[in-house]
Amino acid sequence: MVNTQLADDVRMRGFKQRAPVDIAYEWLASQSLALAVESVSLIAAAGRVLAEDVVSRFNIPGFERSMMDGYAVVAADAQGASGYNQLELRIIGQSMPGVGSNARVISGTTVSIMTGAPLPEGADAVLPAENVEVDGGSVFVMESVAEGRNIGRVGEDVKIGETILNTGRRLRPQDVALMASVGVETVKVYRQPRVNIIVTGNEILPPGEVPQGYQIINSNGPMLAALAGRDGAVVQTMRIVADDENQIRAAMQEPCDILLMTGGTSVGKEDFTPMALAELGELAIHGITMRPSRSTGMGKIGSTVVFLLSGNPVACLCAYDFFGGRFIRQISGRGLDWPYPRQKLALRKKINSMIGRTDYARVKKVDDGIEPVAISGAGILSSTTQADGFVIVPADSEGYPPGTEVDVFMYDQDY
Amino acid sequence: MVNTQLADDVRMRGFKQRAPVDIAYEWLASQSLALAVESVSLIAAAGRVLAEDVVSRFNIPGFERSMMDGYAVVAADAQGASGYNQLELRIIGQSMPGVGSNARVISGTTVSIMTGAPLPEGADAVLPAENVEVDGGSVFVMESVAEGRNIGRVGEDVKIGETILNTGRRLRPQDVALMASVGVETVKVYRQPRVNIIVTGNEILPPGEVPQGYQIINSNGPMLAALAGRDGAVVQTMRIVADDENQIRAAMQEPCDILLMTGGTSVGKEDFTPMALAELGELAIHGITMRPSRSTGMGKIGSTVVFLLSGNPVACLCAYDFFGGRFIRQISGRGLDWPYPRQKLALRKKINSMIGRTDYARVKKVDDGIEPVAISGAGILSSTTQADGFVIVPADSEGYPPGTEVDVFMYDQDY
Repeated sequence: MVNTQLADDVRMRGFKQRAPVDIAYEWLASQSLALAVESVSLIAAAGRVLAEDVVSRFNIPGFERSMMDGYAVVAADAQGASGYNQLELRIIGQSMPGVGSNARVISGTTVSIMTGAPLPEGADAVLPAENVEVDGGSVFVMESVAEGRNIGRVGEDVKIGETILNTGRRLRPQDVALMASVGVETVKVYRQPRVNIIVTGNEILPPGEVPQGYQIINSNGPMLAALAGRDGAVVQTMRIVADDENQIRAAMQEPCDILLMTGGTSVGKEDFTPMALAELGELAIHGITMRPSRSTGMGKIGSTVVFLLSGNPVACLCAYDFFGGRFIRQISGRGLDWPYPRQKLALRKKINSMIGRTDYARVKKVDDGIEPVAISGAGILSSTTQADGFVIVPADSEGYPPGTEVDVFMYDQDY
Repeated sequence: MVNTQLADDVRMRGFKQRAPVDIAYEWLASQSLALAVESVSLIAAAGRVLAEDVVSRFNIPGFERSMMDGYAVVAADAQGASGYNQLELRIIGQSMPGVGSNARVISGTTVSIMTGAPLPEGADAVLPAENVEVDGGSVFVMESVAEGRNIGRVGEDVKIGETILNTGRRLRPQDVALMASVGVETVKVYRQPRVNIIVTGNEILPPGEVPQGYQIINSNGPMLAALAGRDGAVVQTMRIVADDENQIRAAMQEPCDILLMTGGTSVGKEDFTPMALAELGELAIHGITMRPSRSTGMGKIGSTVVFLLSGNPVACLCAYDFFGGRFIRQISGRGLDWPYPRQKLALRKKINSMIGRTDYARVKKVDDGIEPVAISGAGILSSTTQADGFVIVPADSEGYPPGTEVDVFMYDQDY
């Protein structure tokens, strides 16, 4: 049953006390999720967030090695060598990667050596191949070389027992490589956040069905699934739930880390979800001073962080990126920046906004600049497929006149 | 058998005729891959590249609908309404999404209506809920409304038969949503490019093994797998192949779209791969005027585009991102930009380079600027995990003095 007092309170408050975007951001920043730890194989670890410090089991390199293709020498031998004073060294062996050479380099001798191959005993420098002339069994040195030159020392990359990567690190491809080098085969990472998606509405059909009468097809669900996947979450369930209080409340209580709900976020008669959230847990924010997405809500049910997104597809996309996606990226170790490349471009037509309201304005490229898309309704999904990106007009701005250089977040992530 | 003349030619040419990066880019731009087409379900389509034009099966919306929560009215009724001249309309029904109302709105009456709900017969505008006062069975209108206001027209988003997305489009989350709306359940996309990775070297062990003597663990393979996955490819095989001419040649001929090879790219005695590539197909580029990765090669075997990358891990990462990754992104519809967010930051220490050479300089954040990482050897993998990003010094620059504002490509993709 709905708590009537609470329901009235939610309804009364309506959107008269909308929160600024920054207040919603503060609330999100104060939220965390205790994600469980799981082991993944090295090959699946890129992009995941480390849940342990990684310590090297080996020295890298584990032996003195050549950094060049060339000749292992006693550096003192090459002193004073030049094009006019070529010094001859007799080749007494060859050191190949993984094999090395048993030959011992003494004054007057050299061992040819490849990059990565072990340094033979006696040698204390490597002459690059381009600094010598080879003639039969000898090389003629034409440049001196400092002791230690072109030699990789034991442990100079990584020392045994050294912590190479710390808990909380979002693993890059090169981190995976370094972990492989130091003997890691599996690694502990935080579980990806699990997202449930609930799309409410009696009129909603799953993709592939043919709408009859006033039915429409679920487009927000597939969009949110794609967005959440992009931001590092795993979509656990995506369900259409009828506008029935009990069914909605039951679906809202299914376990997940993050619940994304669309539809029924407003204060209309059928908009159960804010009330249900207030009663089942906490409705922390309801209504935000922004356009579109002003009906956005957020809160918690137990440890689940819940986002109430508009059923209007443009508002749904906007509210997801402003809040839901931000939170998923926050707890996935991806930082708080927008997941879109940004370009500075000049406005060719003005963007209007209002002091006190944050605007999400879809824009289109024109010649060397941008202009707002003509159709601005939050229900016009094709405006987001025709747009090239969006501009955010902050709450302290009334908009921008033509000619203003603005940051454009590009929808097409072509990096 | 190796073609001896060809082999000598490759060896002779050595790196005396290195190509500038731009020439390698030109060669890459001239390459294409005929990727097969496959059908994927809508839910798996985000990020993929369309292989067909998508045409709408429906009008969106399919019926006149309200864009607001409010009251469906005859606009003429509200003419002249204001706070001082409130006009009364009798509520004769309610239109809910998916249901509508049988009531017919005539002058003096109204139907309450929710966002997305069908417009009842007779109404030609919707008054927003905030512009009326409700009292019992009537509303009192306090503002006039233009005919057609807050009504979504049939097909105003998408018209039946309209092409909504074109072949070649890299699908965004909102594209998936729009396709769902217009009745798409599966969609034709280009197959992701299939990558084989070959790591050559007798001394290379798979991750998880314990190196003995002069052995080292395969770190380039897992790194390349992570990189290629990030850029939209599917890694088909990742193999370690001994420095054996026949085994390498056999592995190089296994079918794939893109072959990434590391090790054996130089002109040392064991460096079979450039020769094998020249003989099996075309060695288009061998040696590039850059640091690191100057031994990079590329070419083709049949329709497979082949990249010869250094075995040095830093050079391998650099050459992959400059060339292999660029090509994968090119044919995956991701454009040619670097897959790293960029920041303008000031250098706190100089970066040295040389006219005629492109440099890839790893840099670290310090205070509010950056400096090059101290250890610059291409064999020091940890330099790329300790670095925060890299700076590219183009061939026409000798480097940058301290204080220069430079574009830094951030390794940590925290967007």
